[in-house]
Amino acid sequence: MHVLITGAAGMIGRKLTAQLTSLGGVNGRAIERMTLTDIVPPDAPAGAPFPVTATANDLSAPGAAGRAVASRPDLIFHLAAVVSGEAEADFDKGYLVNLDGTRALLEAIRLAGGGYRPRMVFASSIAVFGAPFPETIPDDLFLTPLTSYGTQKACCELLLADYVRRGFLDGVGIRLPTIVVRPGAPNKAASGFFSAIIREPLSGMEAVLPVSEDVRHWFASPRAAVGFLLHAASLSRDAVGARVNLTMPGLCCTVGEEIAALGRVAGPRATARIRRAPDAVIARIVAGWPQSFEASRAAALGFQADTSFDDIVTAHIEDELGGRIAA
Amino acid sequence: MHVLITGAAGMIGRKLTAQLTSLGGVNGRAIERMTLTDIVPPDAPAGAPFPVTATANDLSAPGAAGRAVASRPDLIFHLAAVVSGEAEADFDKGYLVNLDGTRALLEAIRLAGGGYRPRMVFASSIAVFGAPFPETIPDDLFLTPLTSYGTQKACCELLLADYVRRGFLDGVGIRLPTIVVRPGAPNKAASGFFSAIIREPLSGMEAVLPVSEDVRHWFASPRAAVGFLLHAASLSRDAVGARVNLTMPGLCCTVGEEIAALGRVAGPRATARIRRAPDAVIARIVAGWPQSFEASRAAALGFQADTSFDDIVTAHIEDELGGRIAA
Repeated sequence: MHVLITGAAGMIGRKLTAQLTSLGGVNGRAIERMTLTDIVPPDAPAGAPFPVTATANDLSAPGAAGRAVASRPDLIFHLAAVVSGEAEADFDKGYLVNLDGTRALLEAIRLAGGGYRPRMVFASSIAVFGAPFPETIPDDLFLTPLTSYGTQKACCELLLADYVRRGFLDGVGIRLPTIVVRPGAPNKAASGFFSAIIREPLSGMEAVLPVSEDVRHWFASPRAAVGFLLHAASLSRDAVGARVNLTMPGLCCTVGEEIAALGRVAGPRATARIRRAPDAVIARIVAGWPQSFEASRAAALGFQADTSFDDIVTAHIEDELGGRIAA
Repeated sequence: MHVLITGAAGMIGRKLTAQLTSLGGVNGRAIERMTLTDIVPPDAPAGAPFPVTATANDLSAPGAAGRAVASRPDLIFHLAAVVSGEAEADFDKGYLVNLDGTRALLEAIRLAGGGYRPRMVFASSIAVFGAPFPETIPDDLFLTPLTSYGTQKACCELLLADYVRRGFLDGVGIRLPTIVVRPGAPNKAASGFFSAIIREPLSGMEAVLPVSEDVRHWFASPRAAVGFLLHAASLSRDAVGARVNLTMPGLCCTVGEEIAALGRVAGPRATARIRRAPDAVIARIVAGWPQSFEASRAAALGFQADTSFDDIVTAHIEDELGGRIAA
């Protein structure tokens, strides 16, 4: 089969590419070809057992979505997006990339003709929800996003469901939890500290914690996120049903529980590198975020969350640090 | 103030125009000017105490939305839409008019500059909900539309909420119940019989009832719908809050209760003109429709539903038949 990954240069895109390259197939079918696109040319994976085409392609540009599906990929992982902070700062760009780009891709599929009807896995986000909400969010709660990013993802979920209903493609939207531990340099996202307080101490650096330890949130490791994408690709149309957008399971834990897990895995020298510096602005933003979800449908469909934050810390050490913790 | 009505040539648009003309003002402010648009030129109301401009304007055409707000209306009733059946039959037209047209209007407002920040009342629909759902639908249920029309309305609700949140305009979306008794000729809409079994007998004609009398649905009279639009225009930003899209209250009743009301108002000669002709296709479509809503927020905000189906029948006789029932 031919697999297309959009947003392939992003963190999840790269990990998904590596996993698919390693597996050599998906859903019991060998991968015969892989196409990677992003606004910058993604790196082609080393040693792939199938041909890989990596190209820069901005789906929101005229004709770009048509080019992306011209070679008729059987399975599309649609990860391309402007992140939350940028979509809020640049209204036009957020709508252009996140809404128009996705719609262009759906339209290109619809108009391809010749019975083309690929499977698409669409990366949505828990940002489609907006406070106030119940402590544990049920699967049937309304979407009241409080960011333009969340609005764009929610619109794309609706479009995906309608295009699937009309028979233009076979699709699943998965709402990813906040991903921790994100590898790489600290960024300015309000959620950055959830990763930084683990990642930086493991590398011998100080991390700043701007909120209190009782802040509770909904997490998935990069490994779990890749697992969600692959599992979504394997589900049958009948199993998913008409409601194609699913809240992914996650690990609900507090910042204090994160720190305790870090201590268990890496000891007190690691946790001592977390500096408390309360920030009222960040605390207020975070207070509007969801804490926990039922995610009953996803669980029933077999999606697997991380089972402990210790495992999330350990996975980061294995996958990003070559198994070594800073002394 | 300057009032713009889009979709002004439609049934609700004409009734809203007439009501505003009769009132001469809205929210305690005199109307100084009114602009009516639709894809065909709407009729200007006779004897309006203010200047009325009636023009054909397809909001989805390039530049049209900008022209619609160039004169900076203070209050916009955005009713323009392709109806459910047409949006399902013509995929492109439905998305173009219902989604792109509304987005173009929102964008034209955002880009108008100079502190322009009108109030918009957006006519949404209970078609944003899709079966299966609880017998009584709460305000916080998710939107899982089963038509392209419902999808387009749900996307527009999300866009409206985001544009309001960003401060580009002040808006309220109201989900209208099924409107009965619709005046005019029977149409082929699956919901047509809800009106036809009242309207036709009152005019001495036979009506066909394709479903059983225990079918239950959610109704508002044209009078109540106009009342919802005017009330929505009067609400303060603070009262509406962040969740600007509201399910309107309605009258929950069965087809049997409709017929009983017709009998009370117009006697057995009217009800005898209803011919039972079960239609499995229509019955199946109708089985997927909502039956009842809590509509708690709208009720708390002072929206007023019809209080009985007798009143709905009586209003139709007064407003459409000059008070006369066929013998």
